[in-house]
Amino acid sequence: MATKRVTRRQLLGSVGLTAGASLLAGCGETLHGAAPEGAASAGAGESKPQKTQGNTDNPWRYVRLDPAAVAAEAYRLYPDGGCMYGVFAGILLVAAKENRESQLRFPVDMMKYGEGGVGGWGSLCGAANGGAAVIGLFETDKQRRQNLISELLSWYEATELPIYLPKIPLEASVCIKTIAGSVLCHVSAGKWCKVSGNEVGSKERKERCRRLTADVAVKTVELLNAHLSEPCKFAGPRPEVKSCLSCHDKELHDTVGKMQCDSCHQQLSAKHPAMPCTPLPSNGNPKDAKR
Amino acid sequence: MATKRVTRRQLLGSVGLTAGASLLAGCGETLHGAAPEGAASAGAGESKPQKTQGNTDNPWRYVRLDPAAVAAEAYRLYPDGGCMYGVFAGILLVAAKENRESQLRFPVDMMKYGEGGVGGWGSLCGAANGGAAVIGLFETDKQRRQNLISELLSWYEATELPIYLPKIPLEASVCIKTIAGSVLCHVSAGKWCKVSGNEVGSKERKERCRRLTADVAVKTVELLNAHLSEPCKFAGPRPEVKSCLSCHDKELHDTVGKMQCDSCHQQLSAKHPAMPCTPLPSNGNPKDAKR
Repeated sequence: MATKRVTRRQLLGSVGLTAGASLLAGCGETLHGAAPEGAASAGAGESKPQKTQGNTDNPWRYVRLDPAAVAAEAYRLYPDGGCMYGVFAGILLVAAKENRESQLRFPVDMMKYGEGGVGGWGSLCGAANGGAAVIGLFETDKQRRQNLISELLSWYEATELPIYLPKIPLEASVCIKTIAGSVLCHVSAGKWCKVSGNEVGSKERKERCRRLTADVAVKTVELLNAHLSEPCKFAGPRPEVKSCLSCHDKELHDTVGKMQCDSCHQQLSAKHPAMPCTPLPSNGNPKDAKR
Repeated sequence: MATKRVTRRQLLGSVGLTAGASLLAGCGETLHGAAPEGAASAGAGESKPQKTQGNTDNPWRYVRLDPAAVAAEAYRLYPDGGCMYGVFAGILLVAAKENRESQLRFPVDMMKYGEGGVGGWGSLCGAANGGAAVIGLFETDKQRRQNLISELLSWYEATELPIYLPKIPLEASVCIKTIAGSVLCHVSAGKWCKVSGNEVGSKERKERCRRLTADVAVKTVELLNAHLSEPCKFAGPRPEVKSCLSCHDKELHDTVGKMQCDSCHQQLSAKHPAMPCTPLPSNGNPKDAKR
């Protein structure tokens, strides 16, 4: 087991790309802060920002991808393993068409675990988990990674989804759009079912999640593409979340998170100021908001 | 780029294992249903159960691991990248000491994305996300994977954590234990802070999450080890969750999830029967519970 030869044909064959691998989406531009050669670095300290532009030895550097190609691939893959798999494998397969053997070696099947909010538990939306995992793969600097993830999750919470329209619409083609108001599968899918009148097991709900998978894949590569030119900045949580955190984070120090609060906390105890302060009082202090 | 030689020394060096790689935890027993050689299989249908016992070509087959070794590794790694990284890299590095080149090639740094409920968002606990990701890596059969994940997450929700005691206790060694009642970082860490009186940014909270990281890594390999002998069965959600799902899943079909309901739904509308039926009425129908 000292050495191993792996041919390009073997690798391409393993992901079904030997024939028809004609889709070239990148343009050679690479991302700051990708993972080191060999990749695993357990035991090392927190990764530092790295400029890897032009570093051809790094198998995990991000190369600009075509959002349309990624959307089509994520949508195509969804039926094989769900939302997290669709986003992650969709992006990685388009990236792999840049002839990156290491990316072809990634065991993308593992990402099927994220379906239905991880194993059907309804926790974090698998598409969001998959997009964040892709960001984790290509951006190892903690602050930059968290900025990208925050932009992705903020967008997910506040955007009417799904947006993607497949080229060949299935029967269940008319999709209602909803704003999830949460990154949790249970809330996101449940809200869509309530508004659209469809059941969670319906083909319409599955088609909604399939299109949303394409949407999250697109947003992820749009963020990574933009990040190539200018490091992503996160503007901060939404005003109503910022309002809650102005006490819970800045004074009480009792809260981990940036999720939209009122998707769970719909009723607050009497000691709270008015429900997440929308708008904030003129002095900006939520404590002075009317009850 | 047609072929590439990779020596064992290069790979071990890349994860800091060239020297001191003396910890051998496995015993050669392998898991049913691991991922195929080359691993990526995008475009294929849902993976089918595979018996891979004795299949030495499969780089992602699970080999029985020593929970104590995994705990120590996960605890050691936590400061370098947080909870998801600690669980995932801890297990994979112990597995890699079985001389599996492919496992050494896995870019474990990517799992730092899960820290603080994914990028600090407080959603799914990163340790739980990491354990589920390990399960996804080694078990590709959907039902078996979901059973293992469900057992892990049920345990996480209902167990007093942290359990792990490091060999060399840090200053913040006295850890309060709490039952999270949720798989969400925001709830789990928040509850611990409330009960223990510590702030989320405190060294005590970090020590709590570091130990919990070891606990989740241990539970994950305990489940996978047991699964080698007898496929994991999930007994189903807890009675109070089953009570909610008896309407929302079986009749209304409007809910994705198995999470403990009352961690968010603390007050229900009047049309509901009594708060998640504890105990269920004598006829077992939650609709007949007293309001």
